[in-house]
Amino acid sequence: MTSHQLTAAMFSTPGMQQIFSSHQTVQCMLDFEAALSRAQAQEGIIPAEAVAAIIACCDAGKFDIDALTTDAAQAGNLAIPLVRQLTAMVAKNNKESARYVHWGATSQDVIDTGMILQLREAIDLIVTDLAVLADICAGLAKQHVHTVMIGRTWMQHALPVTLGMKVAGWLDAIMRHQERLSQLQQRVLVLQFGGAAGTLASLGNQGLTVASAIAHDLELALPALPWHAQRDRMAEVASVLGMLTGTLGKIARDIALHSQTEVAELAEPAAAGRGGSSTMPHKRNPVGCAATLTAATRVPALVATMLSGMVQEQERALGGWQAEWDTLPEIACLCAAALRHMTYVISGLQVDKEQMRANIDITRGLVMAESVSLALAEHIGREAAHQLLERACTLAVEKRQTLLQVLSAHADVTRYLSRAALEQCLDPLAYTGEAASFVERVLAAHMQRKM
Amino acid sequence: MTSHQLTAAMFSTPGMQQIFSSHQTVQCMLDFEAALSRAQAQEGIIPAEAVAAIIACCDAGKFDIDALTTDAAQAGNLAIPLVRQLTAMVAKNNKESARYVHWGATSQDVIDTGMILQLREAIDLIVTDLAVLADICAGLAKQHVHTVMIGRTWMQHALPVTLGMKVAGWLDAIMRHQERLSQLQQRVLVLQFGGAAGTLASLGNQGLTVASAIAHDLELALPALPWHAQRDRMAEVASVLGMLTGTLGKIARDIALHSQTEVAELAEPAAAGRGGSSTMPHKRNPVGCAATLTAATRVPALVATMLSGMVQEQERALGGWQAEWDTLPEIACLCAAALRHMTYVISGLQVDKEQMRANIDITRGLVMAESVSLALAEHIGREAAHQLLERACTLAVEKRQTLLQVLSAHADVTRYLSRAALEQCLDPLAYTGEAASFVERVLAAHMQRKM
Amino acid sequence: MTSHQLTAAMFSTPGMQQIFSSHQTVQCMLDFEAALSRAQAQEGIIPAEAVAAIIACCDAGKFDIDALTTDAAQAGNLAIPLVRQLTAMVAKNNKESARYVHWGATSQDVIDTGMILQLREAIDLIVTDLAVLADICAGLAKQHVHTVMIGRTWMQHALPVTLGMKVAGWLDAIMRHQERLSQLQQRVLVLQFGGAAGTLASLGNQGLTVASAIAHDLELALPALPWHAQRDRMAEVASVLGMLTGTLGKIARDIALHSQTEVAELAEPAAAGRGGSSTMPHKRNPVGCAATLTAATRVPALVATMLSGMVQEQERALGGWQAEWDTLPEIACLCAAALRHMTYVISGLQVDKEQMRANIDITRGLVMAESVSLALAEHIGREAAHQLLERACTLAVEKRQTLLQVLSAHADVTRYLSRAALEQCLDPLAYTGEAASFVERVLAAHMQRKM
Amino acid sequence: MTSHQLTAAMFSTPGMQQIFSSHQTVQCMLDFEAALSRAQAQEGIIPAEAVAAIIACCDAGKFDIDALTTDAAQAGNLAIPLVRQLTAMVAKNNKESARYVHWGATSQDVIDTGMILQLREAIDLIVTDLAVLADICAGLAKQHVHTVMIGRTWMQHALPVTLGMKVAGWLDAIMRHQERLSQLQQRVLVLQFGGAAGTLASLGNQGLTVASAIAHDLELALPALPWHAQRDRMAEVASVLGMLTGTLGKIARDIALHSQTEVAELAEPAAAGRGGSSTMPHKRNPVGCAATLTAATRVPALVATMLSGMVQEQERALGGWQAEWDTLPEIACLCAAALRHMTYVISGLQVDKEQMRANIDITRGLVMAESVSLALAEHIGREAAHQLLERACTLAVEKRQTLLQVLSAHADVTRYLSRAALEQCLDPLAYTGEAASFVERVLAAHMQRKM
Repeated sequence: MTSHQLTAAMFSTPGMQQIFSSHQTVQCMLDFEAALSRAQAQEGIIPAEAVAAIIACCDAGKFDIDALTTDAAQAGNLAIPLVRQLTAMVAKNNKESARYVHWGATSQDVIDTGMILQLREAIDLIVTDLAVLADICAGLAKQHVHTVMIGRTWMQHALPVTLGMKVAGWLDAIMRHQERLSQLQQRVLVLQFGGAAGTLASLGNQGLTVASAIAHDLELALPALPWHAQRDRMAEVASVLGMLTGTLGKIARDIALHSQTEVAELAEPAAAGRGGSSTMPHKRNPVGCAATLTAATRVPALVATMLSGMVQEQERALGGWQAEWDTLPEIACLCAAALRHMTYVISGLQVDKEQMRANIDITRGLVMAESVSLALAEHIGREAAHQLLERACTLAVEKRQTLLQVLSAHADVTRYLSRAALEQCLDPLAYTGEAASFVERVLAAHMQRKM
Repeated sequence: MTSHQLTAAMFSTPGMQQIFSSHQTVQCMLDFEAALSRAQAQEGIIPAEAVAAIIACCDAGKFDIDALTTDAAQAGNLAIPLVRQLTAMVAKNNKESARYVHWGATSQDVIDTGMILQLREAIDLIVTDLAVLADICAGLAKQHVHTVMIGRTWMQHALPVTLGMKVAGWLDAIMRHQERLSQLQQRVLVLQFGGAAGTLASLGNQGLTVASAIAHDLELALPALPWHAQRDRMAEVASVLGMLTGTLGKIARDIALHSQTEVAELAEPAAAGRGGSSTMPHKRNPVGCAATLTAATRVPALVATMLSGMVQEQERALGGWQAEWDTLPEIACLCAAALRHMTYVISGLQVDKEQMRANIDITRGLVMAESVSLALAEHIGREAAHQLLERACTLAVEKRQTLLQVLSAHADVTRYLSRAALEQCLDPLAYTGEAASFVERVLAAHMQRKM
Repeated sequence: MTSHQLTAAMFSTPGMQQIFSSHQTVQCMLDFEAALSRAQAQEGIIPAEAVAAIIACCDAGKFDIDALTTDAAQAGNLAIPLVRQLTAMVAKNNKESARYVHWGATSQDVIDTGMILQLREAIDLIVTDLAVLADICAGLAKQHVHTVMIGRTWMQHALPVTLGMKVAGWLDAIMRHQERLSQLQQRVLVLQFGGAAGTLASLGNQGLTVASAIAHDLELALPALPWHAQRDRMAEVASVLGMLTGTLGKIARDIALHSQTEVAELAEPAAAGRGGSSTMPHKRNPVGCAATLTAATRVPALVATMLSGMVQEQERALGGWQAEWDTLPEIACLCAAALRHMTYVISGLQVDKEQMRANIDITRGLVMAESVSLALAEHIGREAAHQLLERACTLAVEKRQTLLQVLSAHADVTRYLSRAALEQCLDPLAYTGEAASFVERVLAAHMQRKM
Repeated sequence: MTSHQLTAAMFSTPGMQQIFSSHQTVQCMLDFEAALSRAQAQEGIIPAEAVAAIIACCDAGKFDIDALTTDAAQAGNLAIPLVRQLTAMVAKNNKESARYVHWGATSQDVIDTGMILQLREAIDLIVTDLAVLADICAGLAKQHVHTVMIGRTWMQHALPVTLGMKVAGWLDAIMRHQERLSQLQQRVLVLQFGGAAGTLASLGNQGLTVASAIAHDLELALPALPWHAQRDRMAEVASVLGMLTGTLGKIARDIALHSQTEVAELAEPAAAGRGGSSTMPHKRNPVGCAATLTAATRVPALVATMLSGMVQEQERALGGWQAEWDTLPEIACLCAAALRHMTYVISGLQVDKEQMRANIDITRGLVMAESVSLALAEHIGREAAHQLLERACTLAVEKRQTLLQVLSAHADVTRYLSRAALEQCLDPLAYTGEAASFVERVLAAHMQRKM
């Protein structure tokens, strides 16, 4: 085992580790074998007594995982040694029944369906967690609909925004991911069953009936035909989780930037042993953001692996398929971890409104120039107002004065705008445009989604 | 300019080159500027006379592209010099109107909306082309529903399949891409309009109304809020085109493998100057497959770029956004080229049924062993039948005889199976299982899609 | 733990699993801590008695790995809980000494130096294995210096080559990788030691002396300065292993293509339980090639992750660094596995010379047209010879005759070339140009390398 | 043409655009053809008069680029139509000579050698530019060897560092890239010449002699054998440029972070039209950093494409090779652009030492706690000193006092440390450890490199 174990708590979640554990991987494959035998008994293809014998052995706890691992390397896949162990186990109790194990199926049927069953759980888990994060964001956006802060573009102060609008932007993206996940579930959660070359030939004219019965048993949809070498479904899971991880990475980057010592507007929740530095007591490292940014650094390339792997040979592939086995679980784990981290961080996010307000003033009012210019334009025209403000800004920078100081001393301004009017123009909260409406629109969509 | 020009006919299409040409890129940006001014005049924000002056100049043909390029490098984006040129042009005719150019908008509003307008055309083009390819595949699948060929797994002969089923597999994947593209269009084709920090503050309380009017004018949906730093939409375009390219790459790999000199079952359409080799007259290089495989090699990484780029800073980003500019058009071009290549290749695909039939016999009937085994099992039981066939196969390999020869000489076989019955068992066409049903299911879905 | 365990025997090697095991990861970090305390005692910074107490605890076997994992997720890295456990362990025996644990070092010093120690072993292992593969290839190239086979370009028959030359091409690339690995070892195997911000400030004016002593102790080079946020060394390890994996993937693809049922020129070594198919006794799946192609599909993206991760913030990074932790070991494991697989496959490669010879004739001599044309040109001029051969080729295809048949019936040919001369021209072995010289050149370089 | 033209000034350089222009691409291919004919005339393979005729036409200016583009799409590569045009051109003047055009060579010989010639120029250009950047960094590191600033880890204030040390870290990485580039030039700049299947068969026993003569003519090394399907050389160019781009991205990220409005320690050089915002006069966007970060976002994936493409089929490949054509130039252009941008930015970097000094104080002295603790430890022991400082820090945060204020009021401190001693401890410049030595070491290595 690689050092993945050591980082699992950072870059995975207990739920995902359980779903993609060796035990569960084997169990999902066995679930297919059990469903296969039930379906075939139902159709009279294998004797009823064989089913009981087979199902009794379809318990991952009874399997020798180390032997599976070793033999898989020789066989080229996990299914061959799994079926061999299963057959031997059934034979011990019931020699006759053993020959009906895995009847008519091929290795990829077991492995793919097993993976689909794991992905179903994994996606469910992400869908559930994502709904929680969406609710938290909705609450935060609502709470801070009027919390003004400076907007930053190109990492420079721009104009005021609100924290509510920023969070609403996160939520809006999250809702699109919810929609994508829902559409994906329709398309992806299907049975794989085709036999050696995808024709189900060994089942004579009962192939489709059996396939349909297995799908029903496993509560999966029945695809139009087997898809051994058509991997767009797997690539879609990867892509959508990749996009979600990207959004989570964006949120993490935002929070990390806002948490910088100089900025200090947001902070990850404090907790004992969390992000501390033994030698530097003043530090609190944004460890949730770091882990999420790690996921966002790693997942895009893993998605590319899945897309590269789509170019598969003929009926069953050499390399492209096998590349999925570790890559898809890795994507799911990293995505789930990022989701968990951001949920933790956002749910306990420390918001320093005073610091937000103070930071706006770093440029001594320059970020409010546009607001004054627009007010003044009503009196002296746009062109003149714009030029006046440009000169005032330059002056403020040169003299290290506030824009208010400069403008208050300017007759062309005071003639039209009283001190109070000027202060109103320079109030960032009064210059957040549609920010509140945007929040409202997103929250309305969120409410509608939940109904 | 890089040598892209030289490879454009291979790795792009005329349609895509037009859509993403410098001229069209500028024009789509100008379309936004025009719509912006119309919307603002409609809302009384800018004078009606300004609109005419501005619209008259919104013609890419009038712009100095070289100057745009040079200035963009200084400004950091295309919009700044574009707006400067536009303003200067308007000012020449109407100094007053010039100040209303680009009113309330930010660079990213223009660039993103312009890109969305280009993507709309690009996706339309791909949707149209994909429908053509789907029809061609449907026709081919139908025509070859009974064309038997050997199925190959791990690049080794497995059991018989049909060409119809193989093509139906391509079509099935294509239809999922059609569905994804359709869902994507709903989600992605939206206006970008937020002003300097995304609040539309400079438009006072008319921001949303103006946004709505622009969206209506450009026939784009109005998003819940601006999405300057939320790039999942762009990533989704990349991902879905990436998946489609993967499927096309899979088809190309199939055809290339079937076109090998030893296999010779399929061939790209012959044409003068196509794939020939001056020094080797016997060669016909599968150039359509090569170009498609090139696209499938290049696109996954470009998708990863788009996903990596999602981690954007605050209200507007530094690097992640800019990385989209050349990457998205490149993905669209490569995908469209692959689509065009495969459409050309499949529509004129040369199918050698005799060679397909002959190739099945390379193993002298061994690939039909399962079929005989199943027939024999009815008489002597599965276990015995399986063991008998295994021995027969070994014998056939050792003696370099056909399986028919070996079995015909075996009393335990001839006792139950007549020569005719044996030949029937060894007939690959009689052992294609549900292949025809699978084709039917896919064709039915295709028909339903078209209605 | 993810299902990586199940695939470890396929996509890793026992050696790599040992090197990157949780135990060894922890041990290498402890090796740094031990060396640190030794160096500081030597310089009189910490008391001599503390060293013994600390070193006694620097044994991974004594650590609670599960607690490390859990705490690492809170702390954001492994070093913090590791140092905490180490300190507690030392304190149990010697409270005084405990305060000297990790003195002056930062988490990244421990983690990076630990990783460098692991990479040193990993690269050594690959260097050793690669030398073995180089020898095997040299032997094979020599053995088959005159084994003629058809060369294939664009997956079509071209002109004859030799198996020896093909293998020499593999060897030539391998030798370049050996050179790269050797240059990389010089550049990469260095100490990381800089303290909290990279200045070693807490060690006063003894920082460099201590650093030098640690480096000497661990047999690592001392870099010019700490490199916490300069990750080109790690990216280089990834890149060079990535290139090596690419070459191994190329070899695997070659062998897989030559192993196709229709081609049947090469085969992986046969072994019980290896690549078999229970339902299809005639099949032998190239599982070594499949695993290697899997590695070659996965590694490029992982290299991209390492390159993306280089963009690190300031003195120590948020995400980019952490992304290395699992990615580098994964690359090393996949590369080592591919190397092991290809070594196994090539060392037991089954070569069917007769089939190679037979495949050349599939085009009935057309691939030898150039050879005849050149011989004839001496008599009738190039232009005329070329045209004659073109017509002859066309005729051979139309009549389904061999080129020899067509040419033997052509007076313009027989006038100048006797039947024997013609047969000589059509002998592929006589038309392999410099193939043997190329093999010789590569073998000479290989011999020189070994001296 | 795609919109690459519009972004070329941002994401490429004039030099690279020239090197990879259509014209130069064609010219480098023609340079191979000319050298080929010279070498063959020298060896008596083609008539001397043919050489003059051929060389006279080897002028890219005479070629129809549009026709090349169109025909390349049919032929599958550029060389076929290029040779066709060249042959036709020669034939116009000298029909006899025309048949000696491209004698014995294959398309890939021309294309690969042409690319190598382009890469030689591209690498030269990067090597030259990199030396300039190294010098600039050396100057800056020297100049700021004592410019103290806060070190930041995990994007949080840590301990003081110096700007000199930070820049020395950049320079140190740059020097490793210089070394890599130099080693790469030895390995990569070789001739490609193998004929149709790599054996040079059509040249009889003169193949190697001709190859040697061409290599000599083009001033390229002669490889041990042709490398049509062994692409590690090309992958290495990509990887090394990828690593360099990563380092440049790291520098850009540093500068962008230091340029944030709140931090304001560094700024890109100001210039008319550079990074300005029409609506926000206070803004100066770091456009050089943005372009460099864009390159660093895009290049890793392009490197992955090159590595993925290494898995090439047999003697000449289908897709993997073709994927290099646009990808390598793109990497070179992006890398060169990033290099140019960072050179511009660093050479005119605005350094605000006062702001650096002021930012250190944001935590009111907390970042200096370790320094005081070490001084106090000499008097009261480490443990006690550490605990005292921890309490002092907590108090400073609670009371919003400086650490100096808190400590000055503490009898246990003032007993041992005078006000002056305390101030000395709290002086960040006095606590930069080996920073100056590190700078010195790097500068010494730089001087040595230049000799």
